[in-house]
Amino acid sequence: MAAKKPKRVTARVPRGFVDRDASDLRAQDAMLAKIRRVYETYGFEPVETPVFEYTDALGKFLPDSDRPNEGVFSIEDDDEQWMSLRYDLTAPLARYVAENFETLPKPYRSYRAGYVFRNEKPGPGRFRQFMQFDADIVGAPNVSADAEMAMMMADTMEALGIPHGQYVIRVNNRKVLDGVLEAIGLGGEENAGRRLTVLRAIDKLDKFGVEGVRLLLGEGRKDESGDFTPGAGLNKEQQTFVLTATSQAFDLTEVRNATGRPLGDMRTAEGETLFYDNLFAGRFAFDTARNDVGREGARELIQIAEACEAAGYGSLRVVIDPSVVRGLEYYTGPVFEAELLFDVTNEKGEVVRFGSVGGGGRYDGLVSRFMSQPVPATGFSIGVSRLMTALKNLGRLETSTRTGPVVVTVMDRDRMADYQKMASDLRAALNPKDESGEPLGPPVPVEVFQGNPKQFGKQLQYADRRDAPCVIIQGGDEKAACKVQVKDLALGKELSAKITDNAEWREARAGQEMVDYAPDKPGDMIAAVRAILARASGAKG
Amino acid sequence: MAAKKPKRVTARVPRGFVDRDASDLRAQDAMLAKIRRVYETYGFEPVETPVFEYTDALGKFLPDSDRPNEGVFSIEDDDEQWMSLRYDLTAPLARYVAENFETLPKPYRSYRAGYVFRNEKPGPGRFRQFMQFDADIVGAPNVSADAEMAMMMADTMEALGIPHGQYVIRVNNRKVLDGVLEAIGLGGEENAGRRLTVLRAIDKLDKFGVEGVRLLLGEGRKDESGDFTPGAGLNKEQQTFVLTATSQAFDLTEVRNATGRPLGDMRTAEGETLFYDNLFAGRFAFDTARNDVGREGARELIQIAEACEAAGYGSLRVVIDPSVVRGLEYYTGPVFEAELLFDVTNEKGEVVRFGSVGGGGRYDGLVSRFMSQPVPATGFSIGVSRLMTALKNLGRLETSTRTGPVVVTVMDRDRMADYQKMASDLRAALNPKDESGEPLGPPVPVEVFQGNPKQFGKQLQYADRRDAPCVIIQGGDEKAACKVQVKDLALGKELSAKITDNAEWREARAGQEMVDYAPDKPGDMIAAVRAILARASGAKG
Repeated sequence: MAAKKPKRVTARVPRGFVDRDASDLRAQDAMLAKIRRVYETYGFEPVETPVFEYTDALGKFLPDSDRPNEGVFSIEDDDEQWMSLRYDLTAPLARYVAENFETLPKPYRSYRAGYVFRNEKPGPGRFRQFMQFDADIVGAPNVSADAEMAMMMADTMEALGIPHGQYVIRVNNRKVLDGVLEAIGLGGEENAGRRLTVLRAIDKLDKFGVEGVRLLLGEGRKDESGDFTPGAGLNKEQQTFVLTATSQAFDLTEVRNATGRPLGDMRTAEGETLFYDNLFAGRFAFDTARNDVGREGARELIQIAEACEAAGYGSLRVVIDPSVVRGLEYYTGPVFEAELLFDVTNEKGEVVRFGSVGGGGRYDGLVSRFMSQPVPATGFSIGVSRLMTALKNLGRLETSTRTGPVVVTVMDRDRMADYQKMASDLRAALNPKDESGEPLGPPVPVEVFQGNPKQFGKQLQYADRRDAPCVIIQGGDEKAACKVQVKDLALGKELSAKITDNAEWREARAGQEMVDYAPDKPGDMIAAVRAILARASGAKG
Repeated sequence: MAAKKPKRVTARVPRGFVDRDASDLRAQDAMLAKIRRVYETYGFEPVETPVFEYTDALGKFLPDSDRPNEGVFSIEDDDEQWMSLRYDLTAPLARYVAENFETLPKPYRSYRAGYVFRNEKPGPGRFRQFMQFDADIVGAPNVSADAEMAMMMADTMEALGIPHGQYVIRVNNRKVLDGVLEAIGLGGEENAGRRLTVLRAIDKLDKFGVEGVRLLLGEGRKDESGDFTPGAGLNKEQQTFVLTATSQAFDLTEVRNATGRPLGDMRTAEGETLFYDNLFAGRFAFDTARNDVGREGARELIQIAEACEAAGYGSLRVVIDPSVVRGLEYYTGPVFEAELLFDVTNEKGEVVRFGSVGGGGRYDGLVSRFMSQPVPATGFSIGVSRLMTALKNLGRLETSTRTGPVVVTVMDRDRMADYQKMASDLRAALNPKDESGEPLGPPVPVEVFQGNPKQFGKQLQYADRRDAPCVIIQGGDEKAACKVQVKDLALGKELSAKITDNAEWREARAGQEMVDYAPDKPGDMIAAVRAILARASGAKG
């Protein structure tokens, strides 16, 4: 066939991109509506930015991309400015807030769902376009805002039907991680690059385990395909120090129990030391007393723990976990991650914990890149398709239970106008509106068969394929007798598979009802369809 | 300031792109939901494709772009395939259907709202990213599907509150236009390019008027900026012929009246001639009898007219208008346009008819570009932001009447955990759920003030700016007395503008109520807030 029409183009979706069908989109809509509702109960408002930003405004904060433009799709505009497709929704928000700073309320609470783009090598489960759903507070200097974010993430998980105990919000603080790095001699401006390498290694604990990360902290790691990732060059002692400090989480109750005091007591110098020692010194021999950045981080974690405990989010809903890093370079303080705790079988057949469905943190430098003043901010981002996969695994994804369309079939192709009038009358009657024009109830689809009407059996196959509750049939005999046939497909289903032509059809009338019909008297037809819809929804309900 | 921090990046949205705020997005959501509902009552289902397509799959169908890649944003992938951002939603749908042909029901009814991208020079009202909302039937050979599209567009306009008489769906047929072109000697393969130039000229009747289009049909036209568009090179007689044939619409009733017969009678050879003569020959002396393509087009228009009349969409809702072209090159048969008839004042201060908010047509060649078989299709596209502008002009755009957040203020920054508990309790109480976890009623936002709490007046200004119905206040005195203040901002509004510090505040208690409160006894606070919300919604309703 290719030889016959050499110019024919091959239909293929671009590599790393996907098409999405009705059930996927409807499930996503239902999920996004639930998330949106949670965000709105916390006072967040929608905002949307375009998919392009100037490349300089986006900055270079992507993990694993040290070369300029790596990881992003970029285009030079005709005025020689480079534009890039956004790789997340945080950098564009920072630009938006800076550009509209004077007119926005401060703090500025906003949310947005949108596609982001990564110019990466496509692979299984790695897409180049995917949706994120973010919420951010800009102009919020206190870590109480970070605590609020963690609690809102917990509320979001529960609103989606993920029960208490199946998820956890893990909270850490980049400052604590900086304290760890300082403790092993990686403080100071000159070690910024190496610190980042260590952080990115810690971030892979979930993926590569302790031994894999040990390689990344040391000499480097070769993956299965033979690609080599250079390591941070830490010595054995440093590696062990980092891994001991970061590889175990503990919940807020545990913190309180370990210190033997209510969290509220810890905001004394003594309490802080207790907390910080519990965080680190209990696990390895090390003097934490003079590690200022680490102590500040610990102090902030105490405040977050306290706020979460007080509002009832303590215990197993929010935990302090020193392994949480988050890959993006712009985080400056608390970071958090929503993790799902149930097991799934991965593509290699291994049973693994489902893992992260989103996260975020404080990014105090991102807006002020554009400003002459500090603009502290915190927020989080949900990976929409990952979360959908999770809900599917949990049986919590709303799957479509919609009734298919009422199909008006075509027995005589010269009478399309008549069939369209039937469809039009049915559509109006089955989709009533109130006085203000608002629809009452969910949409009831009605359509005329618009394919080639020659083989009647194909029309019935189509109706069946679309999950139609019933079809309307009017051939010449019915028209002459001022009648239509209304066929209940659920009742007649077994039979319809066998039917191949009109003659045979006319003899097979199971589930089929003859009712009076004239173009100006559609009432009986409408009543018959209503009765079938009522039966169908009764059977589903 | 720039000198102080030379590396600061300027925050600016890229040229030709826009940010969108909460009221804009909420109004759009409400509008899209109404459109979606209409589409669903006609049996259409959602589908979504990615923003990128391979450039060869998109094809070159944009008006006014004769050079490759002009008008689109393109990027070369690392496997040397070119990808482009979609410029409409029809070409990607064609690719999707071809790629998934075997698994889709046929006919395939689908809808999708999404952003499209044009790499054009930005200008006032000309954006490089804008939203379209399309519906299409693929695998529908009969023009009854085009008639259905026209009727669905009419239903969509009315569902949006645009009354009968304020809009019209204009229908034409490319085949009729081809007949006109054949009549002036522009038939045949060799004139394909020139035909396109003439069609694009006719398409500008709205924009440039008869005299402007006459220039485009002839020598060419220079615009106000001095740019010259070459003309089609028609002679005076040809120009007049084209303009006479295309510059006047007539409604279906008019057609029927002019011929003196019901539309149903016209599907005889005699009736067709009558209709076709009425379309053209009544206006200029010309022998239409042997113009086959034109007659076929007319025959199809008769069928469309008939179906619309029968279903009650005749008269002024759907009209036959030979000036309708639609700019895109891929249309092959009926084309239609939704036009709004009310006047607006344009940027030059001129009163003009609002004009088109969307359109579409039959594109029988677009899917079969990828296939070894013909796949007839028809659909239309709504320009979402243009339609929003129209609804704004008509006062039909749903503007937000939401209540702002209940704001828990911060009197003591060391007690953030206490304030967050108040917010958390209020949020849970004001957003009740049914047994299955479904929320009852619209979201009621509650938030803790997360900005710098130092100046209390700023917290009240913030609450005011967010249209908060009330604020919660608890300083040391209230805490000691196991109380909180609940302040009704509508009642207390006049006063709050004058308040600058806490001391003054404590004396100004209008609209303010002291209620019992303890962390484990939030009931009175919740009841007081509920009463204020009820008053506020009563005042709005």
